Amino acid sequence: MAQKPSTPKGTRDFSTLEMARRNYIFDTIRSVFRLFGYRQIETPALENLSTLMGKYGEEGDKLLFKVLNSGDFLAKVDASLLENRDSLHTAPRICDRGLRYDLTVPFARFVVQHRDELQMPFKRFQIQPVWRADRPQKGRYREFYQCDADVVGSDSLINEVELLQIIDEVFARLNIRVAIKLNNRKILAGIAELIGAPDKLIDITVAIDKIDKIGLEKVNEELAERGLSAEAIEQLRPILEIGGTTAERLEKLASILASSETGTKGVEELRFVVGTTETLGLRAVLDLDVSLARGLNYYTGTIIEVKALDTEIGSISGGGRYDNLTGVFGMDGLSGVGVSFGADRIYDVLNALGLFPDDTARSTRVLFANFGEAEALASLRIIKELRAAGVATEIYPDASKMKKQIAYANALGVPFFAMVGETELANGTVALKNMATGEQNTVAINELAAAVD
Amino acid sequence: MAQKPSTPKGTRDFSTLEMARRNYIFDTIRSVFRLFGYRQIETPALENLSTLMGKYGEEGDKLLFKVLNSGDFLAKVDASLLENRDSLHTAPRICDRGLRYDLTVPFARFVVQHRDELQMPFKRFQIQPVWRADRPQKGRYREFYQCDADVVGSDSLINEVELLQIIDEVFARLNIRVAIKLNNRKILAGIAELIGAPDKLIDITVAIDKIDKIGLEKVNEELAERGLSAEAIEQLRPILEIGGTTAERLEKLASILASSETGTKGVEELRFVVGTTETLGLRAVLDLDVSLARGLNYYTGTIIEVKALDTEIGSISGGGRYDNLTGVFGMDGLSGVGVSFGADRIYDVLNALGLFPDDTARSTRVLFANFGEAEALASLRIIKELRAAGVATEIYPDASKMKKQIAYANALGVPFFAMVGETELANGTVALKNMATGEQNTVAINELAAAVD
Repeated sequence: MAQKPSTPKGTRDFSTLEMARRNYIFDTIRSVFRLFGYRQIETPALENLSTLMGKYGEEGDKLLFKVLNSGDFLAKVDASLLENRDSLHTAPRICDRGLRYDLTVPFARFVVQHRDELQMPFKRFQIQPVWRADRPQKGRYREFYQCDADVVGSDSLINEVELLQIIDEVFARLNIRVAIKLNNRKILAGIAELIGAPDKLIDITVAIDKIDKIGLEKVNEELAERGLSAEAIEQLRPILEIGGTTAERLEKLASILASSETGTKGVEELRFVVGTTETLGLRAVLDLDVSLARGLNYYTGTIIEVKALDTEIGSISGGGRYDNLTGVFGMDGLSGVGVSFGADRIYDVLNALGLFPDDTARSTRVLFANFGEAEALASLRIIKELRAAGVATEIYPDASKMKKQIAYANALGVPFFAMVGETELANGTVALKNMATGEQNTVAINELAAAVD
Repeated sequence: MAQKPSTPKGTRDFSTLEMARRNYIFDTIRSVFRLFGYRQIETPALENLSTLMGKYGEEGDKLLFKVLNSGDFLAKVDASLLENRDSLHTAPRICDRGLRYDLTVPFARFVVQHRDELQMPFKRFQIQPVWRADRPQKGRYREFYQCDADVVGSDSLINEVELLQIIDEVFARLNIRVAIKLNNRKILAGIAELIGAPDKLIDITVAIDKIDKIGLEKVNEELAERGLSAEAIEQLRPILEIGGTTAERLEKLASILASSETGTKGVEELRFVVGTTETLGLRAVLDLDVSLARGLNYYTGTIIEVKALDTEIGSISGGGRYDNLTGVFGMDGLSGVGVSFGADRIYDVLNALGLFPDDTARSTRVLFANFGEAEALASLRIIKELRAAGVATEIYPDASKMKKQIAYANALGVPFFAMVGETELANGTVALKNMATGEQNTVAINELAAAVD
């Protein structure tokens, strides 16, 4: 036999069991998005490279999967590029298209391209795969799904409140206990201002983002390396060590940041979001975390990150507000806010905690045995009625040995095994075996749908 | 403003309306597949080029989208290839992966790769996009979805019967009247044998496949060009002109092909499939068509093609039996049979005939107006209850002018517009407007869910 074929590194097949479980996750997320008035769009996997390049930083450009042009793609490439084997600069000459790297840039492109047809505010969700030529490792793939909901064209903080409710509802439905960490870019800017280092905003946030991993002292060392004065570092300490409930911490921050207009605005925004969300009632814990910076170059207001409480698996959802999503495509002034769910991480959490419902993988309810042509034909008539009643039903297609047919029933995990043999054929009945209890009964055909309900 | 960005040629965005309609098609197909015991799998968009190359003929190889290797992809390419700008032979040196071209080859790869984990017969369905670097034209795209159901590991003709029932059920649910054309590769082989040209099977089928388009005389000219003797062509004529019902035509074929073992087997298979399916009852018309050859190099038994009766749009579904799906990956003897639904064509048929249900695009049931912070907060409390009752509900996020909010409600096509203004806030009621009738009522909060039902 030839060598066993395989999928490319970093990509996966999904078996019927895995798909059933993934669909459980996708269906849950999709239902909640719809309940909140978000509507689905899809964009193509292939985008023009000009749409993708320069949007994810230099590193991101390298991680884009580029698609080779058709036909005589080498014809117009400068000879010197080929002679020098200059892969970096040859790539964009022989590839006009690439694979979607995330759902946000294609969404921005979508909004700009279709702006005349869109009613603002535009609330869209999108559940599609993305591709990254990253080094594959445990839990990191080259092809994986993102599930994003975003609203553009509205500055209202009600959107933030509803996105937190969406997060809460999704994880409540999945039975995953979560903490939702919140921050606001304006608070980070206020802090930088306060300690006299407004130009060091990025350095500060990159460093303090690591506080959970490396601790305050190491963060301070890094801040010093990044050129922050000892005085500034000393001023930062009490802010990073603020304690109490989220409401208490917000009050303390308000007084610390009172002299910064931006910082005060950030506190006010967060106060509204936290206050309104908690007034409306939330199952998840809301946790103010001034060290939360995720995707800072991008977010301009609220920053959200979700962690599962009962596992060590990291962030399973996140998002925030960005004030100029479409500027990069020449359309300014459109504010947006959104959340993204990581289906693979959520899968791992549900799997690790044994939270997939038992019947997730179950599809067929009744499997009919096959005893030969006459019995099969009689079975097919009954099966037609069952299916018309909405009962997913199968017949074993071949008149194989019963052992083989029962092995198939067991592998499928069907709740009922139905037999129409000679006796049943003569009597117009079905022998019905409950696979869980082993109990077997003779059932009249017109009572079968009720019996398997 | 910068140049408006766009999607690559041959690819499309799907708007919220288009997605709602596409989901109506996908959901219908998926439900029917499940009702018949088919289970979903997914395979990655990226496949190793070695998996894809050589599976779709020379033309197919050219239509594969190839993905450029990461990093220094030019490093190991023969200098002579680059000097000669030999694009054809350079491509496989700089691309190890390509995009899925159909769902069948990846499925064959999946079966071989996972054979130890699969319970045979294996009934899978798969709904995913595929990519072809074809010249785009009306109704032909470079990225489009296929919806396939196949069963492997069973020779039973019951599978064919059930696949015909699946086709019938899908189109009945979509309210599309269809004719299902049937043929059998063994009948075609029998005919070639009978007229003394068994080696000309491909030539004969390629030519007679065109009979609907160019007529019998032109077909006969082509057969002569392809080296068929005048005598053979004369013998073929009565077979192509067979009339009567499908049952009558099968009887005539049986007697014509009596001397051919293969042909007789083909007639018997088709007789069983047609007889059993019609006994069980079918809404679609079954139509024996000996000129039907679709994908002949591939199919070995039953051949199926579905046409919508009320439009000129061509084939909207098709399939057949293939006896050696996995042989190309070194695993012999596995027979399969399947059908594929063309989502884009089905979309066009539903659109042309006005068959999309009116409420397909509707998602949000109630939109709340926004009169300011206090009213919005009260509305959000009510909305929480509505959502808990499963009613998809939104609030207009900003306290904009009422004209703008109503324009949004109209654009969304929401059935109900709810208003909590000063009066309602004081009275604990909601002013509810039925957008279809224009009727407006004051409703108690605890009666709202029932009122919008």
